[in-house]
Amino acid sequence: MAEWIGIGRRARRCYGFDEIALVPGAQTINPNEVDTSFKIDGKKFNVPIMAAAMDGVVDVNFAVAMSKLGGIAVLNLDGIQTRYENPDVVLEKISHTSAEEATTLIQSIYTTPVKEKLIAKRIKQIKEKGGIAALSCIPAHAEKFGKIAMQNNADIFIVQSTVTTTKHVSREYKTLDLAKFCKSMKIPVILGNCVTYETTLELMQIGASGLLIGIGPGAACTTRGVLGIGVPQVTATVDAAGARDFHFKRTGKYIPIITDGGMNRGGDICKAFAAGADAVMIGSSFAHAKEAPGRGYHWGMATSHVNLPRGTRIRVGTTGTLKDILFGPAKVDDGSQNLMGALKTSMGSLGAGTIKQMHDVEIIIAPSIQTEGKIFQVGQRVGMGK
Amino acid sequence: MAEWIGIGRRARRCYGFDEIALVPGAQTINPNEVDTSFKIDGKKFNVPIMAAAMDGVVDVNFAVAMSKLGGIAVLNLDGIQTRYENPDVVLEKISHTSAEEATTLIQSIYTTPVKEKLIAKRIKQIKEKGGIAALSCIPAHAEKFGKIAMQNNADIFIVQSTVTTTKHVSREYKTLDLAKFCKSMKIPVILGNCVTYETTLELMQIGASGLLIGIGPGAACTTRGVLGIGVPQVTATVDAAGARDFHFKRTGKYIPIITDGGMNRGGDICKAFAAGADAVMIGSSFAHAKEAPGRGYHWGMATSHVNLPRGTRIRVGTTGTLKDILFGPAKVDDGSQNLMGALKTSMGSLGAGTIKQMHDVEIIIAPSIQTEGKIFQVGQRVGMGK
Amino acid sequence: MAEWIGIGRRARRCYGFDEIALVPGAQTINPNEVDTSFKIDGKKFNVPIMAAAMDGVVDVNFAVAMSKLGGIAVLNLDGIQTRYENPDVVLEKISHTSAEEATTLIQSIYTTPVKEKLIAKRIKQIKEKGGIAALSCIPAHAEKFGKIAMQNNADIFIVQSTVTTTKHVSREYKTLDLAKFCKSMKIPVILGNCVTYETTLELMQIGASGLLIGIGPGAACTTRGVLGIGVPQVTATVDAAGARDFHFKRTGKYIPIITDGGMNRGGDICKAFAAGADAVMIGSSFAHAKEAPGRGYHWGMATSHVNLPRGTRIRVGTTGTLKDILFGPAKVDDGSQNLMGALKTSMGSLGAGTIKQMHDVEIIIAPSIQTEGKIFQVGQRVGMGK
Amino acid sequence: MAEWIGIGRRARRCYGFDEIALVPGAQTINPNEVDTSFKIDGKKFNVPIMAAAMDGVVDVNFAVAMSKLGGIAVLNLDGIQTRYENPDVVLEKISHTSAEEATTLIQSIYTTPVKEKLIAKRIKQIKEKGGIAALSCIPAHAEKFGKIAMQNNADIFIVQSTVTTTKHVSREYKTLDLAKFCKSMKIPVILGNCVTYETTLELMQIGASGLLIGIGPGAACTTRGVLGIGVPQVTATVDAAGARDFHFKRTGKYIPIITDGGMNRGGDICKAFAAGADAVMIGSSFAHAKEAPGRGYHWGMATSHVNLPRGTRIRVGTTGTLKDILFGPAKVDDGSQNLMGALKTSMGSLGAGTIKQMHDVEIIIAPSIQTEGKIFQVGQRVGMGK
Repeated sequence: MAEWIGIGRRARRCYGFDEIALVPGAQTINPNEVDTSFKIDGKKFNVPIMAAAMDGVVDVNFAVAMSKLGGIAVLNLDGIQTRYENPDVVLEKISHTSAEEATTLIQSIYTTPVKEKLIAKRIKQIKEKGGIAALSCIPAHAEKFGKIAMQNNADIFIVQSTVTTTKHVSREYKTLDLAKFCKSMKIPVILGNCVTYETTLELMQIGASGLLIGIGPGAACTTRGVLGIGVPQVTATVDAAGARDFHFKRTGKYIPIITDGGMNRGGDICKAFAAGADAVMIGSSFAHAKEAPGRGYHWGMATSHVNLPRGTRIRVGTTGTLKDILFGPAKVDDGSQNLMGALKTSMGSLGAGTIKQMHDVEIIIAPSIQTEGKIFQVGQRVGMGK
Repeated sequence: MAEWIGIGRRARRCYGFDEIALVPGAQTINPNEVDTSFKIDGKKFNVPIMAAAMDGVVDVNFAVAMSKLGGIAVLNLDGIQTRYENPDVVLEKISHTSAEEATTLIQSIYTTPVKEKLIAKRIKQIKEKGGIAALSCIPAHAEKFGKIAMQNNADIFIVQSTVTTTKHVSREYKTLDLAKFCKSMKIPVILGNCVTYETTLELMQIGASGLLIGIGPGAACTTRGVLGIGVPQVTATVDAAGARDFHFKRTGKYIPIITDGGMNRGGDICKAFAAGADAVMIGSSFAHAKEAPGRGYHWGMATSHVNLPRGTRIRVGTTGTLKDILFGPAKVDDGSQNLMGALKTSMGSLGAGTIKQMHDVEIIIAPSIQTEGKIFQVGQRVGMGK
Repeated sequence: MAEWIGIGRRARRCYGFDEIALVPGAQTINPNEVDTSFKIDGKKFNVPIMAAAMDGVVDVNFAVAMSKLGGIAVLNLDGIQTRYENPDVVLEKISHTSAEEATTLIQSIYTTPVKEKLIAKRIKQIKEKGGIAALSCIPAHAEKFGKIAMQNNADIFIVQSTVTTTKHVSREYKTLDLAKFCKSMKIPVILGNCVTYETTLELMQIGASGLLIGIGPGAACTTRGVLGIGVPQVTATVDAAGARDFHFKRTGKYIPIITDGGMNRGGDICKAFAAGADAVMIGSSFAHAKEAPGRGYHWGMATSHVNLPRGTRIRVGTTGTLKDILFGPAKVDDGSQNLMGALKTSMGSLGAGTIKQMHDVEIIIAPSIQTEGKIFQVGQRVGMGK
Repeated sequence: MAEWIGIGRRARRCYGFDEIALVPGAQTINPNEVDTSFKIDGKKFNVPIMAAAMDGVVDVNFAVAMSKLGGIAVLNLDGIQTRYENPDVVLEKISHTSAEEATTLIQSIYTTPVKEKLIAKRIKQIKEKGGIAALSCIPAHAEKFGKIAMQNNADIFIVQSTVTTTKHVSREYKTLDLAKFCKSMKIPVILGNCVTYETTLELMQIGASGLLIGIGPGAACTTRGVLGIGVPQVTATVDAAGARDFHFKRTGKYIPIITDGGMNRGGDICKAFAAGADAVMIGSSFAHAKEAPGRGYHWGMATSHVNLPRGTRIRVGTTGTLKDILFGPAKVDDGSQNLMGALKTSMGSLGAGTIKQMHDVEIIIAPSIQTEGKIFQVGQRVGMGK
């Protein structure tokens, strides 16, 4: 597991999605008959793919649409939706600015402070339309926003930072006591992001109802480039799953882990489940949806950082409805549409009837080599019974 | 063989064609004197390269031409040839549509149902012209089409799906009993695709006369991208060959394995044999043939999938006759022509007089790095005796 | 640690920045409260990033500006600043010549001999403006220039060649006795470059006050291409750090090692510290500065080599002030600006309060794969307390 | 050394030039004082870089020029020089044809039979001008051409095919008895190409005076693509060097091994020597020379193969005289010029005073990653004493 990288020092080899593949077992299952559900604090969701708290992806309408399709979309409480009474005007502006001025515009837009009454308003709007109100904020705002969330009957509360641990050291400001916070919240609290066995276990022990797994997972991601920090998602998920299973054995409590980031195609999602994820969280794939507030644009939440921006606005285009992206029919063959269809077909081909069984599928190390012209493959017909 | 990919979880490192190379031994042989033949149920074929059941590759004329050259071309019973009385009209249309509309057109063309009388007709056409009638269909059609094939004196019957196992689970529909099916057929039945030692062995034990090896083998293949599933072909072939040799030792029956997919050049084919293949099945290389019905176009059989298409029409161009592709003379130096010449020269240089001896050639792990300008090599003269 | 590369011969696998990543531990720290300082001969510097002795990067003004920001910029005593009374005329010429004629022009410019009085002048200019006079020359000039440096109260003297060892063999000319030289100098002497444990230890034992680590580190660097020589910087730094720690244990003297070369982005710098560096030396990132004499151009010191040039003039562009590059605000998200902000944020996220603690951060092997479109990542918000 | 590539089968990991680098030791040497000579049958040559027997590289004048500079250029006896009384007319034609028609033209040019009197004439021309007459032909022509060579006082005779072994099997034609042939020749005979320890040893035992090492070494080379055959040059050289050293220990005869192919830059050549080569043979680098008969074009000897061409004519351009390429001054910084300067500088930096000492230099595994913009490196000044 650990290689020498110099005299007296070893390092673990970690693996990402592009380096592994899944191997069919001794049986196959009709894809229509597999169970893809997962649970948070006992509540069941049929779609184990969550939409990330990004301003180009989730607003009130998107959250409602996602809920009705069986999934969860997370609203960013530190973003445009809670800074502006009328976010559409601002989002329209972002979608019309030039590429050169996008970062500066976004930086300036995020200097307007968050309005607490807008938090309450957005939650109510989601609930009124029958949606699941899942909310996210940074640790510094957790206590204040958490209370507002509870008062307005939100369903799930997420405290998210690039790196989350149980211990944060500072003399300059008061740090958030995560254990106390979890205890104080009457609704499920999901914490993240983390990547190691130890931290996953500690965050489960202090009362998290779910964990976001993933730091700097993208191959060319900015956090890794700027800070040097990151763990490839397959290893991060395997490690976190190990902690979850250990915690379950000790306590009987099964805390779901949600692999977050670095998945672009259906195949990546399938691999995350095989590595041990109970659910996944994705951003850019949903930015393609007609319902996404980004109008075909997408930007990371660190794009707005005043001093050290890590991300920029990119044009992703609008390729279909949220329903198309989740359930198809796919109009393209690159794995970016019909994500649930891909997951079900994969589970069927692998003989996994449930997400839990997906955790036991054989993984192989098989680096992908990008060769032009090597796109076709003989016998791409799927499903034995069809 | 297995590396740790995270705490408590290991994965095998698997290898593809681009990662290996073959090493000459202590002798060389005159390439003209090597024996490339293989057998299916006792019947010998001099060309161990089969043409895949793809609609852009095989029609009646192609099957006849291939048979006369000593090989086997497989007709797709679920495709255009059995859906349309006059397939040329339809194929002409596909070759003239724009790139944007190709997938939609192909999807609509494949909604016309298969006509059973056309199956009989195509078999008769092949047989009348002296060809070998090798046919392929998906498991759901196997019982019905298998009977028609036998009634019309077809030679070989192939049941093919992306992932084939001896056990398929479904409550929704009746699944095919492969063992019973093999027993009921009076002609050789080839099954596939599979990749593991266990499944290969099980499919041999239930009566297959041959197996197709390969799931998602292409480096950038869609099944791996969309479903996350795939095993690199060298490892898949080595594993399947192990099962074949074990089965032979136990039962005395030598069931050939046919490596299917992911081979683009002569060198890839040579490597497949070195890994243990008795024959190989290729698609796109044959799509280049003048005789191929695709008119210089090629598409995977999953392109027509209504809900989750995995593949698109690509232009491959027509580069020569089928004879040129198999026996040369090659007009290009990229390994796409004179495949049999390449195989024979490789066997001669490696000192392997038969395909069986090719199985014992030394393989090394030698990742290929694509460097422009590094194309030439000193001393590329071949053949000691010439 | 060592793999067989052929019969009877083994080789160590070494690692570069692109192959590793850093893993957060059990705590995080407020980035504003971390200590980034390092010491040379007891003198403390708050910015552990040195500017390399390259003519497109450092002149008198740059050295002064760098000193005032807390760092060290090294003036090249064998370059344009000491060959020309008025270097700006020459630098202007280099920046206006065509790409084709740049190497020839640079070669001719460097044929004008170094003037000793200009060495004295430059040192005085730096000191008068309150800067730290850190100077560098090749071994052949060390004795002569070293004396001038001392006479003019320079602060730090660097003797630098591609490969430095304690023993250089020649019958043709007199070689420099490094031990004697170090002893003769009354100011700190930094030696380099070196890469191995043994040589690092030997150079510490003969009296160096600091060492430059790195030979041919750049992935596509010319020394490796032309001479075949080079050690990836992570392994080189880990090995040198091992020697430093051993030397400290034996003698009680802590000699800082300065990783020199191959770092392009903030993340690379963070990784160098994690590998064991006390400081880093970079060139091209500073060539982007408004204060850099290269006017947006940059060239290696071997570009001027008469017989075997290794490097050429490249246009890097001017992207901001030296202060922007060191402390931000970053206007781009590629890790080339706000290097100190990146280092502090990384240290905070990793829970390292000092450079010494950075040496103990967990490193993983995680090859980066460059995938277009995989730029964004979910949850890029940094800093738990903000 | 051997990894599992599938159940029951292992393969050695082999290494190429791009995967290794050289590490400086405890001393350095003045590059002007290193000894680069090697010997064939007791005769010493100061330039250990041979020019390959390719028609775009070597003719009479080139051979003479190379001899005078201290090296050896090999004339191809199966090529244009011995098929045409006036080869310049033919070479002119090749250099003026279009890219599309080049292969066809070359194929037709090589159908004109070799004229034995021209072999004698070319040898005489070389000898008259004071050159070393080193000649090469394929095994089928060895007996006949060998006699002519001896009668005309040639210096070195090379029998070369893609794969050479001591045993070639054929019923169709009479095979060459290499042992008998070597014995019959009164001038040194060099054999090749080979790659394994066993074959190297056998060819030494039957009387070769030198061996060419390398089969399909180029990263994107055609032999590997078309035939699947090839061994990366570092491993091939290390293995062959092992056989040479064993043979020397047993017999006291030191037979030089000449690494042939796959080297593009000075660094590759240095690595070949570090891996154990006594000399290297290169083609394309010399095709750049003003003296090369290819007029800026280059083609592999298999380009002319009637049935299975492996190579095409490429434009390399004329960049300098042969003297520039061997001894500089280099006008470019990519390692393609001043090859001897690069070798001497490398030997000096590595502390190797002789080619024999280069064999003991430390090799590391350090994959090169091609990153644009990572071209510069700090401190590229070479030579401690200068």
